[in-house]
Amino acid sequence: MSFGIVIGPRVRKSPFYEATVAAGVQSFTIYNHMYLPISYGDPAAEYQRLTEGVSLWDVAAQRQVEVRGPDAERLVRRLTPRELKRVEAGRCFYVPMCDHDGVLINDPVLLVLAEDRYWLSIADGDMLFWVQAVAREGGYDVEVCEPDVSPLAIQGPKAADVMRDLFGGWVDEIKPFRFREARLNGMPLVISRTGWSKQGGYELFLQDSTRGLELWERLFDAGRPYGIGPGAPNYVERVESALLSYRADTDEDTDPLEAGLERFVNLERDDDFIGKQALKRRAQNPTRKLQGVVLDGSPIGPNQHPWPLSLDGERVGEVRAAAYSPRLERNLGLAMLSLAAGKSDREMDADSETGPRKAWVTPLPFIGG
Amino acid sequence: MSFGIVIGPRVRKSPFYEATVAAGVQSFTIYNHMYLPISYGDPAAEYQRLTEGVSLWDVAAQRQVEVRGPDAERLVRRLTPRELKRVEAGRCFYVPMCDHDGVLINDPVLLVLAEDRYWLSIADGDMLFWVQAVAREGGYDVEVCEPDVSPLAIQGPKAADVMRDLFGGWVDEIKPFRFREARLNGMPLVISRTGWSKQGGYELFLQDSTRGLELWERLFDAGRPYGIGPGAPNYVERVESALLSYRADTDEDTDPLEAGLERFVNLERDDDFIGKQALKRRAQNPTRKLQGVVLDGSPIGPNQHPWPLSLDGERVGEVRAAAYSPRLERNLGLAMLSLAAGKSDREMDADSETGPRKAWVTPLPFIGG
Repeated sequence: MSFGIVIGPRVRKSPFYEATVAAGVQSFTIYNHMYLPISYGDPAAEYQRLTEGVSLWDVAAQRQVEVRGPDAERLVRRLTPRELKRVEAGRCFYVPMCDHDGVLINDPVLLVLAEDRYWLSIADGDMLFWVQAVAREGGYDVEVCEPDVSPLAIQGPKAADVMRDLFGGWVDEIKPFRFREARLNGMPLVISRTGWSKQGGYELFLQDSTRGLELWERLFDAGRPYGIGPGAPNYVERVESALLSYRADTDEDTDPLEAGLERFVNLERDDDFIGKQALKRRAQNPTRKLQGVVLDGSPIGPNQHPWPLSLDGERVGEVRAAAYSPRLERNLGLAMLSLAAGKSDREMDADSETGPRKAWVTPLPFIGG
Repeated sequence: MSFGIVIGPRVRKSPFYEATVAAGVQSFTIYNHMYLPISYGDPAAEYQRLTEGVSLWDVAAQRQVEVRGPDAERLVRRLTPRELKRVEAGRCFYVPMCDHDGVLINDPVLLVLAEDRYWLSIADGDMLFWVQAVAREGGYDVEVCEPDVSPLAIQGPKAADVMRDLFGGWVDEIKPFRFREARLNGMPLVISRTGWSKQGGYELFLQDSTRGLELWERLFDAGRPYGIGPGAPNYVERVESALLSYRADTDEDTDPLEAGLERFVNLERDDDFIGKQALKRRAQNPTRKLQGVVLDGSPIGPNQHPWPLSLDGERVGEVRAAAYSPRLERNLGLAMLSLAAGKSDREMDADSETGPRKAWVTPLPFIGG
């Protein structure tokens, strides 16, 4: 059963939209009120390009919330449970964000543009409203806006080759989670060594939405010798790599500790952050955690919705995301599980869309780490 | 060119989802992180059912933000530029909401459940984050949450017949923008005389997501004698009726005065509301307004994105939404126009997806009013 998506003015098109259509995009989701390409019709080829070659992704839907002004650093620190050290221009930080009850409400990458200017490069959710409300109601001396910035991601083991050919050897000097500002034929870019895969690569934050097609073409041309092709954030690869997908792996009450983000949470920080007291309470009485599971049966097409998991007939959690791994030749799942079930090596029962399956806990990530 | 939509766990399914699939849903959009049916494959029949018969809509994506507690009324008043009079249980109010810069950030319907308990029934946008941040940072003594409430809409001139047969004659006593609480076979409902059409009807707010299919079936069965069929918020009818579609008709900087919502804005209110000072400044120097236009040429399929409008070669605004009206047998558009162009009766040029078209300003709404 497959369904169409309506293209209309309520949802924004990316600056790369026409290029993705020309490249044969077949399906979309909607993310931050924009169309986000998901498939070009050949999942096996897209997976292979990402894991063995190089892949170009329209991720303009990953919007930026810009925070600028004298109180910008203080506000940014308050927005995340992570303790940020060496906040210097050119650095990126993965910064989970919580509400006042300690619930995870987004997991952006923070780009430090200057000591008084930051971008939160956000997952799906209106953090613009959240940050504006906190800033204005809290009396912070900052401006908060969504700037004209549209990321294009180049991912895969050959991404560095393409980037070197196009920009020069200096791109090799960009370390992971660092960025540099650059121009390409006058197009203003921030180039970061980041991306929503574990296959290596870069994100190019285009600061001029009128030039999306040009940037896409330049990258595509440079990538041709390396067999570049279109792609998208890849469900299978990200499950294998256990890269968190906010809203897929988490529900309306998940905190960052449950989501496995404890290394980005410092409850002993001297300064306050939103959700600190609530997270301390939650940390004292944890009940569940995101875990890896393997599932038996025929290869799993990505799941449509979470699958209930039970142990001895008792509900112990759910498989939030499931996919078949071509590299491991197994069905993998990310499951939110009770702590007891997560520590058990016993067989659980998953109620999948294609019938019952057996499931077993296994360490994360499935590949890499 | 048509595209598929990916069904996955990042986006929630409605409690009515399986019923819409059984009823033949063909395409969706995503709205408040949920799948929202848009078409069942026969636009002409769906339009006719809505305007002449009765139509059943899964609008569970219209989420509720519940505000409850001693400061709830004070907070709700602060969230909207509308001055609320006679805030009594059982009443609904259309309440545009602004940010601190006076920009429209949502246009919910407020349901007064009790003097200390409210639902904001929201358009597409994370008002949960906005309201939580304002409440918690502002020190309001309230709880803010998204309750388990999923609206199903029954719309069209025969909707009242169906509702009367199913619930009894008392539903006729519900006046426009009023609601009553009721049960149907034990299902807890709020039944309001509201809906996102001008064809009359009700919204049933189901407070138990496990019983969506049962509610859908009960309504469908009761509607059979009246020729009920599935439908969805209707682009053509809402353009004819000039019902505002937040994000379609508005951009990132639209204020409620520009959007034609001046009767829901009281800048002379004694009490403060978010955006009041900014709106006062904007009101002193207005630059543009949402206007009706008619367009020449062949019948318009709903537009994919806004179309630039120019007058004597100069850009004067854009057609945000356009559709062909079967009842008026004309192409209609809602256009954000400079005040000068909006007052002109001269011919403008629209750059539509199907080539250039002529456009003329005309009063709103096109039908009804």
